[in-house]
Amino acid sequence: QSATTLYGVVDAYFSYGKMGDNRKTGIDPGGLTGSRVGFRGTEALGNGVAAVFALEYGLLNDANEGIGTTGLRARQQFVGLKGSFGFAGLGRQYAPGYYVFKYDAAIGTPWGPQAMLGIKAGATIVPASPARANNALNYISPNMGGLTVNTIYAFSEENQATNRRQGDRFSIGAEYANGPLGANVIYHLGRNMPAAVGRDDKKEWYAGGSYNFGVVTLLASYQQVEQDSDTNKVYQVGAIAPVSSAGKLHFAIGRLDHENSAMDATNLTVGYGHALSKRTTAYAFATRVNNDSAQDATFVASAVGQTGENSTSLMVGVNHTF
Amino acid sequence: QSATTLYGVVDAYFSYGKMGDNRKTGIDPGGLTGSRVGFRGTEALGNGVAAVFALEYGLLNDANEGIGTTGLRARQQFVGLKGSFGFAGLGRQYAPGYYVFKYDAAIGTPWGPQAMLGIKAGATIVPASPARANNALNYISPNMGGLTVNTIYAFSEENQATNRRQGDRFSIGAEYANGPLGANVIYHLGRNMPAAVGRDDKKEWYAGGSYNFGVVTLLASYQQVEQDSDTNKVYQVGAIAPVSSAGKLHFAIGRLDHENSAMDATNLTVGYGHALSKRTTAYAFATRVNNDSAQDATFVASAVGQTGENSTSLMVGVNHTF
Amino acid sequence: QSATTLYGVVDAYFSYGKMGDNRKTGIDPGGLTGSRVGFRGTEALGNGVAAVFALEYGLLNDANEGIGTTGLRARQQFVGLKGSFGFAGLGRQYAPGYYVFKYDAAIGTPWGPQAMLGIKAGATIVPASPARANNALNYISPNMGGLTVNTIYAFSEENQATNRRQGDRFSIGAEYANGPLGANVIYHLGRNMPAAVGRDDKKEWYAGGSYNFGVVTLLASYQQVEQDSDTNKVYQVGAIAPVSSAGKLHFAIGRLDHENSAMDATNLTVGYGHALSKRTTAYAFATRVNNDSAQDATFVASAVGQTGENSTSLMVGVNHTF
Repeated sequence: QSATTLYGVVDAYFSYGKMGDNRKTGIDPGGLTGSRVGFRGTEALGNGVAAVFALEYGLLNDANEGIGTTGLRARQQFVGLKGSFGFAGLGRQYAPGYYVFKYDAAIGTPWGPQAMLGIKAGATIVPASPARANNALNYISPNMGGLTVNTIYAFSEENQATNRRQGDRFSIGAEYANGPLGANVIYHLGRNMPAAVGRDDKKEWYAGGSYNFGVVTLLASYQQVEQDSDTNKVYQVGAIAPVSSAGKLHFAIGRLDHENSAMDATNLTVGYGHALSKRTTAYAFATRVNNDSAQDATFVASAVGQTGENSTSLMVGVNHTF
Repeated sequence: QSATTLYGVVDAYFSYGKMGDNRKTGIDPGGLTGSRVGFRGTEALGNGVAAVFALEYGLLNDANEGIGTTGLRARQQFVGLKGSFGFAGLGRQYAPGYYVFKYDAAIGTPWGPQAMLGIKAGATIVPASPARANNALNYISPNMGGLTVNTIYAFSEENQATNRRQGDRFSIGAEYANGPLGANVIYHLGRNMPAAVGRDDKKEWYAGGSYNFGVVTLLASYQQVEQDSDTNKVYQVGAIAPVSSAGKLHFAIGRLDHENSAMDATNLTVGYGHALSKRTTAYAFATRVNNDSAQDATFVASAVGQTGENSTSLMVGVNHTF
Repeated sequence: QSATTLYGVVDAYFSYGKMGDNRKTGIDPGGLTGSRVGFRGTEALGNGVAAVFALEYGLLNDANEGIGTTGLRARQQFVGLKGSFGFAGLGRQYAPGYYVFKYDAAIGTPWGPQAMLGIKAGATIVPASPARANNALNYISPNMGGLTVNTIYAFSEENQATNRRQGDRFSIGAEYANGPLGANVIYHLGRNMPAAVGRDDKKEWYAGGSYNFGVVTLLASYQQVEQDSDTNKVYQVGAIAPVSSAGKLHFAIGRLDHENSAMDATNLTVGYGHALSKRTTAYAFATRVNNDSAQDATFVASAVGQTGENSTSLMVGVNHTF
C-alpha cells in the first residue's frame, strides 16, 4: 500500500569555542546540515498529477530528547499536489528565504556568515528556522527555462476579532539556475511582526548568486531587513574549491551593517569537507567573529556576559544521510 | 526480521470561521481524519495465534511540533494477541465509544455534530480523544455472525492508599454489521470521573445505526451522559449519498439537549468529499452551530467571549493516507 | 538509497504493588525491556570501514505520550565509524555501566535488585537511564580473543568560564566473553557530579560475572559508589535456569549496604519468562523489598509516605520485539 520513504540526517561534531574569557568544549548536533528524521511519499493521481507529502522533524542527537521534542521541532510538515502546474502545498513549509544556503560558501551551516549574521540582523531570509512558516500555503511554479517562482502565504491565526492579518507572512522568490550560473531574488514581508500592536511591517530583500568556474565556485549575496525605520544589511562573499575528487575547501566572509553601529559584526569562516562516500562526509570548520561593542555574535562559546568580545569556534564532525 | 508497517495520514485544510464578531482564517491539520504517523506489525506465533502491536501518534502538521509533542500525543499504543478467541491487548487503546464515527454522516470530523456536541455533553462516547484510555486492558470478541463485543477496562492509577478504583473506566459495546445494516450499542462507565472525591460515577449510553440503501446511506444515533443527577442528550441524524464514482455528499444534523437548557446547541454540517485516488481525498465542508445563551460550541472561530453567539465554519482541504 | 532499519520493542504488563497500606493496580510499559522505537543503518565506506548510526527513543505505551516526549526521551542517538580499529561514535550513548544487565539474573528489569538497588546507591553503573551520557565520545575496541574495552567521555557543557570539566564523565569497562564465561570490570568517574561547586568527584567500581553450566547460569556482581567520603555498596547474586525449550526461571537477590545504615535494603526477585516465538515473550515476575527505616525502595507501589515499609510487587506481561 505504502511507498513511504524513511529518511534523515545524523550529524554530530566536536566543538570548541572561545569568546572573551569564556571557553566551551562539547559534542553538538547538526553541523553541516541539521539532524533530522522524516517520512515522505508520492502517489500518482493520473494526468501527470501526484499527491506528495513530507513529515520531517529536527533531532538533538547529543541530548536526551525525542523526535522534535525541543528547539526545532518540525522542519516541514505538508501535503500537496504536484503536476505540470507546479506544486501547491498546505502545512508548515519553507519560505523562499530558506534556500539562500545555495549562495553561501558555508552552505548554510549555523556558524557561517549567512546564517549567523542574518539572524543577528533580524532576518527571516536565512538558511535556518526563521525561514520556516506555520499555517502556510506554498505555491512553486514549474521550471520555466531555468526560472522558478516560489511564493508562500502564512496565517498568524493570532488575533480573531481585529487586526486579523497582524503577524501574517508573505514571501516570494525568483530563482534562476542554468549551467554554471545560479541566482535568487527574494522578498519577505511580515505584517506587524512579531505580531504586536504598534510594530511596523518587516520588509526584507535579498539578492544572491553563484557561478561555477570549475576550479572554484564564487558565491555572493546582499540582503537588508527594514522595520520601524531601521535598516540592517548583510553582505557576504565566498568560494568553494574542489581540491580532490572527495575534498572541498570553503571560504566565506560576511559583514553585518546594523542600524546601531555598535552592533556591527564580521564573520570569517573557513572549512574543509571530505566525502567518505555518497552519504557520509567528514568536516572541519573554523569561524572567527569580530563584534562591535554592543554585539554578541558567536557560535560555540556562550555569549552570556561577553558582549563586544570577539569569538573563535572550531568544529570537527561527521554528517551521515540516510 | 521485521515486517513492521510504517503508516499515517497527512490532512490539512484551509479554514474560515465566524462567531459573533470573531473571524479567523488559517491552515489547520487533521480535518477529514486526524493526521498521524504509526508503526504496526503482526507476528504469527502458531496455532492461529499472532502477536500484534500498534504505535500511533498524532501530528499537528500546520505547526512547529514533533511526533506527538502536544495536544493529542498518542492515538494508540498497545501490544496484544489475536486468534480464534478474538483480540486481547494491553496499553493505551480505544474504548468502544470511539467507533461511533461509523454512524455519523460527518464521519467523525471534529466539526460534525457527533464529535462537537458529544464533547459539549461531556461524553467519552465520541469519535475523538475522550474515547481513548490509558492503562487499559482491551478484549474484542471474534465476529459472531456479524456481532462483535468490545470491552475495555482502564485503570486510573491515581490514588493508591484509598479509593483505588476512583477514575477507573469500564466500557462495553455490541456492534452488528451485516450487509447494508450496521448498529452499535455502547455503555461507558467512569468511576468518580474525573477522579475526584464527591463526584458520582459518569454513566453513558449510546445507540447508533446505519442502513445503506444504495443511492443513500442513512445514519442516526442517540446518546446520553448521566452524572451527579444531570443528564445531557445528543440526537443526531444524517445521510451520505454517492453522486459519482468518486464523489460523496454528506449531510448531518445534531441537537444537544443539555441539562442546563441555556446550554443547548444545534449543529448542521454539509460537505462533499472527492476521492482523487484510493489514498487521497479532497473535501469541502460547512458547519453552522446555533448556541443557546450559555453555550459556546464552534469549530474554526475562537469562542472566547462569544458565548451564546452562533457560529459558521468553512473547511476546504486534502486528506492523504500512506 | 536507504537501508535503514526501523525497529523497536512494545512491552506492557499488568502490575500490582503493595507497600505499607499503599496498593496500586495498573497497566505499565517496558517491563522485561524498555519500550522503544528506533532507526539504525550501516553504510560501507570501503576498506572494511562503515558509517553506522542509531536513533532510538523511549515509549510510554500505556500513556498519552509521543515518541520520546517524557521521562526517558532518547535511549541513544549517535553517528560513528566501525572497522578493524573497533567503533568510535559521537552523540548520546551508553556508558560501559549500562551492560551490567548481562550479569543480572533479573536481566536488567527495573524491579530487579541490580537496577533498583543500584539507583538507590546513587550509581550510574546500572542497566537504566543513569548510564546514558549526553555529549559523548565513545570508543569500543575490537574483540581481542574475547576481551573488549569500552570507554566513553561525556562533556557536561555546563560551565564555560571556569570549572569547565565540572560534571564531565569518564568511564571504562573491560568485558570478557568466551564460551560459558562472561565478566566485566567497570569504572565510572563523574567530576563534581551532579555539577555543583563543593561536590567531590563520584567514583564507581563494578565487577560482575556469569557462568553457564547448561542446566543453570549463575550470575553475581559487586559494586560501590564513592562520593564525599561516603561509600554505598550493592551485592547481587542470581540464577537463570531453562525449564523447557521456551521457558526460563529467574532468581535474583541483592543487598544495598548504604553508608547510612538506616537506608539499607534487600531485593528478592523471582520470575518466569516464556518465549512465545523468537520475538515475543510472556513473563511473570514477583519482587519483595525489605527496607530499613529510612529507605523507600519499591517498584509498583507508590513510596510516598511509606519510607521504611517493605514492598511487594507482581508483574505479568508481554514483550514484543520488531
